[in-house]
Amino acid sequence: MEQILAKWESLAASSGALRFLDINLRSIGQVMFQNNPLTGILFLAAIAWGSYAAGAPRVAIAGVVAVVVANLVAELLHVETESLHAGLYGFNGILVGLALATFLAPGALLWVYVMLGAAVSVVVMLGTTNVVKPWGGALTFPFVITTWLLLLATYGFSGLAGTALPTGNVVTAFQPYQGSPLQLIELTQGVFLSISQVFLKASSVAALLLLVGLAVSSLASAAFALGGAILAVLTAHLFGAESDLITGGLLGFSPVLTAIALGTVFYQPSWRVVVYTALATVFTVIVQAALNVALTPFAIPALTAPFVLVTWLFLLPRQRLEGAPAVARDNERPAAVA
Amino acid sequence: MEQILAKWESLAASSGALRFLDINLRSIGQVMFQNNPLTGILFLAAIAWGSYAAGAPRVAIAGVVAVVVANLVAELLHVETESLHAGLYGFNGILVGLALATFLAPGALLWVYVMLGAAVSVVVMLGTTNVVKPWGGALTFPFVITTWLLLLATYGFSGLAGTALPTGNVVTAFQPYQGSPLQLIELTQGVFLSISQVFLKASSVAALLLLVGLAVSSLASAAFALGGAILAVLTAHLFGAESDLITGGLLGFSPVLTAIALGTVFYQPSWRVVVYTALATVFTVIVQAALNVALTPFAIPALTAPFVLVTWLFLLPRQRLEGAPAVARDNERPAAVA
Amino acid sequence: MEQILAKWESLAASSGALRFLDINLRSIGQVMFQNNPLTGILFLAAIAWGSYAAGAPRVAIAGVVAVVVANLVAELLHVETESLHAGLYGFNGILVGLALATFLAPGALLWVYVMLGAAVSVVVMLGTTNVVKPWGGALTFPFVITTWLLLLATYGFSGLAGTALPTGNVVTAFQPYQGSPLQLIELTQGVFLSISQVFLKASSVAALLLLVGLAVSSLASAAFALGGAILAVLTAHLFGAESDLITGGLLGFSPVLTAIALGTVFYQPSWRVVVYTALATVFTVIVQAALNVALTPFAIPALTAPFVLVTWLFLLPRQRLEGAPAVARDNERPAAVA
Repeated sequence: MEQILAKWESLAASSGALRFLDINLRSIGQVMFQNNPLTGILFLAAIAWGSYAAGAPRVAIAGVVAVVVANLVAELLHVETESLHAGLYGFNGILVGLALATFLAPGALLWVYVMLGAAVSVVVMLGTTNVVKPWGGALTFPFVITTWLLLLATYGFSGLAGTALPTGNVVTAFQPYQGSPLQLIELTQGVFLSISQVFLKASSVAALLLLVGLAVSSLASAAFALGGAILAVLTAHLFGAESDLITGGLLGFSPVLTAIALGTVFYQPSWRVVVYTALATVFTVIVQAALNVALTPFAIPALTAPFVLVTWLFLLPRQRLEGAPAVARDNERPAAVA
Repeated sequence: MEQILAKWESLAASSGALRFLDINLRSIGQVMFQNNPLTGILFLAAIAWGSYAAGAPRVAIAGVVAVVVANLVAELLHVETESLHAGLYGFNGILVGLALATFLAPGALLWVYVMLGAAVSVVVMLGTTNVVKPWGGALTFPFVITTWLLLLATYGFSGLAGTALPTGNVVTAFQPYQGSPLQLIELTQGVFLSISQVFLKASSVAALLLLVGLAVSSLASAAFALGGAILAVLTAHLFGAESDLITGGLLGFSPVLTAIALGTVFYQPSWRVVVYTALATVFTVIVQAALNVALTPFAIPALTAPFVLVTWLFLLPRQRLEGAPAVARDNERPAAVA
Repeated sequence: MEQILAKWESLAASSGALRFLDINLRSIGQVMFQNNPLTGILFLAAIAWGSYAAGAPRVAIAGVVAVVVANLVAELLHVETESLHAGLYGFNGILVGLALATFLAPGALLWVYVMLGAAVSVVVMLGTTNVVKPWGGALTFPFVITTWLLLLATYGFSGLAGTALPTGNVVTAFQPYQGSPLQLIELTQGVFLSISQVFLKASSVAALLLLVGLAVSSLASAAFALGGAILAVLTAHLFGAESDLITGGLLGFSPVLTAIALGTVFYQPSWRVVVYTALATVFTVIVQAALNVALTPFAIPALTAPFVLVTWLFLLPRQRLEGAPAVARDNERPAAVA
């Protein structure tokens, strides 16, 4: 593995086209914090499979278009080379592309929107990084804020209609449902879909590809992703969330990202960090439920905002956890192949 | 008084259990900025009386559980000793406990929620303090954001139902009401309940206990609390707020905190500071009404968010007011008994 | 021109009353970033004409009262003299006055509200400037946040009723309308009203006065204002926005400010800056549509929030654009007549 990556790195260094390909693959890997082109290939396969299985191949295409546009804009804006090569200016772009193509109807304007959103995500990435540098990275905040604004605007534009957006409504008290208690098989499905929903996919095959993609880069990341998904599903079940949300992975994808981020990227592992990460993961489930409710009147999805909010909150007091050096900076400007 | 406190301090220094009791009492006092265990006892009496009078003793118990959990978590997170001993990591916790037990139905999950909320409030306190250090303290922001997220989430969890939460609705223009002009007695009640509502209580007896608790620690604080409450009730009356909100103290508890904070803690007193504090207090009434409206679609209460917002806005330009040294730092890290 | 301004400056330096008049005129010019008393006179003429033509002269009067109150409060708060003389503490005040008188019914309390809002806008200006200093100016954020809070509060105050506020409602999917394709004449009207709506006016005469006011101070500013308005109208048309919003200038006033701010004030011109500014201008149209939707449940207007949000987002990564020195600081503290 190491040898293959080293060979690839020397190839990429010798060709502008291969370097650009490398940047885009790493961008896809960075959605789950992996600065690794092989991970990017496996993630891309997961996206492609998930889109194909859902009968919407345009979603995968929009993701690819968006990540390419984002990295081109980043080059035009003369962003720092090291961060660019690590894929840090593309991972928000691909998520913008996937989300817009998932939630909006197909059409010429969709592609204008995808490219515009990808370009803006780079500007927001630059800005957010400047603001949050003292305590961590921008995470997927650029994706969330850009996509929210673009989706909200479609309610005022006849050229861009939503297909999968929730219906706007005011908040209502929880309606008790006919509780058919969840079986283990359903909970297991919820765990896997919690992982694939990070890329807005409901597919166990995609989830397995994502786990493999994580494992080839970092076993710890794969373990925290799986552990985070299990903890999230159990927490949602304990508090009595709706079955469909649990089994569809819709309360688990943000906690998965929180678990990877706090458990492996920003803090060095220790039992204190594991407990701290577990608390943050449980709280992310609550914040996911809370934002689902809070965004009801606006008829937009929460996306990964719960992950961003909770991870920022739990990163801010980082210096209080023993053995937590400034790892975040390494993640923001990785020096070479991870 | 001084002697009793000095004796108590030497006792607390000699015993871990007494020190922990001391920390929790000071935490209760810090809700109104008093680093004083005697104030804490009187405030606790006010809470107990208010809960008992409202037929909900579990509310006081939840407050006590929450403050204890918060301080234990703070110790586990190795927070700075001085701040811990001053009660600065517990005052948000007790408010989280009181609010959750006030707005949610009793049950086993409520206690899980109270302990989870108390633990998270400490993390948020650490993080917020890091962000706002340049211009002031975290105030009750950790309480507000943690409780909002927990309450919002309950609309998606069948295990946790609200009992006293407002019904979600869209904003509607003000409905003129049959104006029975308020009598002096009703305005006076509004003034007292504005003070007790700081702890989510509607009780004049609790208000008197709180005023005594303030007075034993700082006469100026008691005076600004009373003055703030009077100014708030008059402002709300002038603008034509609903009678029930005025007499129930529901437009006055945030202004009371603004008045104490700006008038006695963060700025040194002078006539300019008094005028500035009065402007902030009046504006807090408007922000309370504004947030009541803005939160209508989400069906959650404003809590003390108006106090946090206005006090931060009015603290930011602090260096422009003459005679305003960096008093805030002293408040954040008090060296000894106040 | 230069000579007249130099003569005026020496007159103003010799008389407290003339200096105060000068400050208020510059405050009006600063709404569009012009530190120039002649621009202020022409802008004031535009406001007066627009208010008179709309049959609401009280709106212009409220603007004048507000700018005077704001500058008096700024003097009382001992703000920095240079910024005060450049009109930087008054431009939010006049906008607060214009907006409150536009959206609220006339009456004694309106004037209390106008003066209170003007005073608070100065405090918020001081605070916001402290926070955003590292990357730019406060822009019209103090106007937006102060006016939002004051307008929201009126739904809870019977003494202050809205006349022109939108009705609260939840977000609904776009309703296709009978599309009578816009004629060139209507698009042209949209361009002009996009400029006059910066001051909440729907008047082509006012727009021309504003353009002349810009031109006497800075030809580039006039050009970017006009170019921004054209780009905004075309963008809104392309995405299929409602005709009434386009022709009324209601999707274009924020983009006009974005174009001036990024194109002429904060970045030094170059072809890269023009492209960057164009991207920001297009995105401001989208954010305007998005905030119109997002604010629907609260029944308040977006005001210039889209301009503030997008300009901040696009200013944060400033150092990445070549030839972009710290021009912003010059704008915040202009040394003399521009």
